[in-house]
Formats: sequence, C-alpha cells, structure tokens
Amino acid sequence: MHGKVYLFPTTMSAGAPAEVLPQRNIDLIRNVRYFVVEELRTARRFLKACDRSIDIDALNFEVLNEHTPQQDVEAMLRPALEGNDIGVLSEAGCPAVADPGADLVAVAQRRGVEVVPLVGPSSILLSLMGSGFNGQSFAFTGYLPIDAAKRAERFKQMERDIRVRRQTQIFIETPYRNNRLVAELCSKLPGEMLLCVACDITGQDQSIRTMPLKKWKTSQYNYDKKPSIFLLYS
Amino acid sequence: MHGKVYLFPTTMSAGAPAEVLPQRNIDLIRNVRYFVVEELRTARRFLKACDRSIDIDALNFEVLNEHTPQQDVEAMLRPALEGNDIGVLSEAGCPAVADPGADLVAVAQRRGVEVVPLVGPSSILLSLMGSGFNGQSFAFTGYLPIDAAKRAERFKQMERDIRVRRQTQIFIETPYRNNRLVAELCSKLPGEMLLCVACDITGQDQSIRTMPLKKWKTSQYNYDKKPSIFLLYS
Repeated sequence: MHGKVYLFPTTMSAGAPAEVLPQRNIDLIRNVRYFVVEELRTARRFLKACDRSIDIDALNFEVLNEHTPQQDVEAMLRPALEGNDIGVLSEAGCPAVADPGADLVAVAQRRGVEVVPLVGPSSILLSLMGSGFNGQSFAFTGYLPIDAAKRAERFKQMERDIRVRRQTQIFIETPYRNNRLVAELCSKLPGEMLLCVACDITGQDQSIRTMPLKKWKTSQYNYDKKPSIFLLYS
Repeated sequence: MHGKVYLFPTTMSAGAPAEVLPQRNIDLIRNVRYFVVEELRTARRFLKACDRSIDIDALNFEVLNEHTPQQDVEAMLRPALEGNDIGVLSEAGCPAVADPGADLVAVAQRRGVEVVPLVGPSSILLSLMGSGFNGQSFAFTGYLPIDAAKRAERFKQMERDIRVRRQTQIFIETPYRNNRLVAELCSKLPGEMLLCVACDITGQDQSIRTMPLKKWKTSQYNYDKKPSIFLLYS
C-alpha cells in the first residue's frame, strides 16, 4: 500500500494557524513523518506553531525549491512508495501552486500515488473573492515580464482578454516595484478599467481596494515592499 | 462607522465545518446578524452545523442568486452602511467566485465598505494543487459552451493557450455530461495532452487523477452526476 501525498497550506502572515487553517490539517500533520518543504526554517517554525509538542528532530525533511534538479524530485516520492505519508509545505500559502511542489505532485500522479490537497489561504483566491470581479472566468499569469517590449505586449494581452473573454486578470510584481506598477497601469490602460490591489492578505494590515484606474491616479497608496496581488477587470 | 462584508466559505460535502474551515471563521460567524445567501435552506443548515447554539430565527437573511435583479443588490448593503457586519454565504464553497455574491462585493467596493474574504474550500484551487499542473499560469473558464461550433472553438482556444501561454486550463461541465466530456476530450485533443479529473473534492469519495488523454481513453471511470472539475495541460 502506498502512502499519500498531503499538500499542507501554511500561514502567510504572522497569525496563528487556527486563523487560516482547518483543525483537520493540524490533526493530519501530527502523524506525518516525511516532509518535502520549500524552505527548511519556515517549515520547522510552522510545524511548531501547529503543535508545540511535535518532535521536529524525529522528522525527515527534503528541500524542494527552484534550485532542485528535476532528476532529484523522483527520489523524494520514495517514502510514499514504501507506505509512508508525505507532507508538502510551501514557504507561504498553498503548496503546488506557483512553487516547485507541483513537480512532486506530477511525479506522484505518474506513479499512481494519491494526492490530497488541503484547504488553506491563497492570495489568488482570496483577492479574487474580495475584488468583486468576474469569478466565472479568470486567469492568473504570475509575474509581469520586466523586458519593456514583453511587458507592453502583456498589458495589451490583458486588455484584450478582459474585453473579448470577459476574463479577470490576476498578476503579481516584485514587491519593491508595486507603487511604480500602479502608476504604470494608470498611465497605460483605459481610465475606466477597474484595478483591485489586495495587500497583506490574511495579515494585520490586510486591505483589498477596487477602483477605476482614473481614481487610483489621484489616490494615496503605499504598497512598497508589501506582499500584494493585482487584479484588472472592467 | 461602516460594518464589514465577510465572505464565509461553506462546506462542499456532508463533512463537518472543522474539516475544511478555520476556527476563526466559526468564531466570526457567531457574531453576524445580517446574511446575504445564495440559498436559504443550505445557509441555515450550514449555520447550525457551525454552532448548534446559533438562534437562526434571530438572524436576517436576504437571498442573492442568479434570479435577483441587479437593482436589488444595492439595498442589500444597507446593514453595513448602518454599521452592521454582513455575512455572505454561497451554496457551496467560496462566495463571490462564480456566484452572484460578487455583485454585492462590487457594490461594497464602490461604496467603500471593507470586504473580508475568509479561507475555505475551493474546488478550483484544490484541484489545481492536486493536478501537478502549472500553477504559475492558469485560467478558469467556467462551463464549457453547449453549442457545437462554440465548443469546438473553445477546445481550440484551450489547446492554443496551453501551447503558447503554457497556461493550465480549468473548466466544468454539467455533471450528467461528465463521462461524455472525458470521451470527447480523448477524441478531440492530442493523446499526449494531460487531463486531470478532480471529483467530489473534500468529500468521502474524493479522487484526483492526472493521465495523458491516450491513457484516459482505455481507462475505467465513472463521473456521472458527480461534482467534478477538469484540468488540461501538457
């Protein structure tokens, strides 16, 4: 009998696990001995926050991040093939969405190992809920390109996808460029278009604000270096 | 001082709220007196499941569903403008994603009322996590069109978006057509393309299965009338 691969979301801010995670996750994580984690230090800290009595030194950790060679991922599944459950932990939020945990899940699916995603905080989903935008059709496109020509092309594509497909556009930016991005969107896209900025989701300073770009243009805001996610719609 | 608009996700299957919802949601919901709900019966049942001691008859419910005229939505925000918190409940899963709750959120955003989305189960996000597909770029496109020409065009568009944008495609079908859809995808799309079917997410019979279409073609499956979500990638 194979073990299962559990995808455990982690907290995204300093808050307690019970604020953003179901009790079931905590009950399950107590019994897992094998972990594949994006970042060792945050993983250990998270486990201690879930339950102080967890004996961290008795657990097995493998690190899977953007530097991990693809050929090493296969071996990380071995505990499951030998009948042990594996827990996957991302650095923040939901594993296997926009992090290398997805590679392990892909291997598990190929080898017929059951994958069990658990409920937890996702800035993509929470910001979409809070934006008031179309949730019947939306796209998350990750980081904006830095190269000027590619960036201009992406803006055009987003405008087209909003107009033609009625599709909410969700994307992120390197946090120290957040303020510049808002100004850029204001100058390059139609003033009637709606921008939602969701900042510090699940954190103490959470704010989710939707306004037309022409109103953003004259508004006060400061998202500098704060974790933020951006949504466009009209 | 305005009240807040809390977006409370609900359970998607028969399970207990603590399996899929953080304790914080239950703590918050106890203090809300004004609800905007998609379906009255499931909302009452959900509230009782959260806490048997909640006095349902002391609460105020407004129904917001696909039959609600747009001009009625504005008035539903009134309790918040008068300083009371409002709780929004979808029939299943996360409110304001693919349900009319988004209209109330849009009104709240226009009127400057704080919107607080809470963590809960989303079949879109959980299936994406479990699929092993690209989570750095994905699109949810809702229901497939029924009209044959539009449907063929949608298949072409998804194939193009996977190839050109490396974008995971997520969509749903009317449940009694689920089996026919899998056969249709097998016959109309390249055999190497990967299909993930996530069925009964968070339920007793949860299954999340990723395979190339050529393997689905010769596999046994039965998703007839079961809540399922479909993902394509290559």
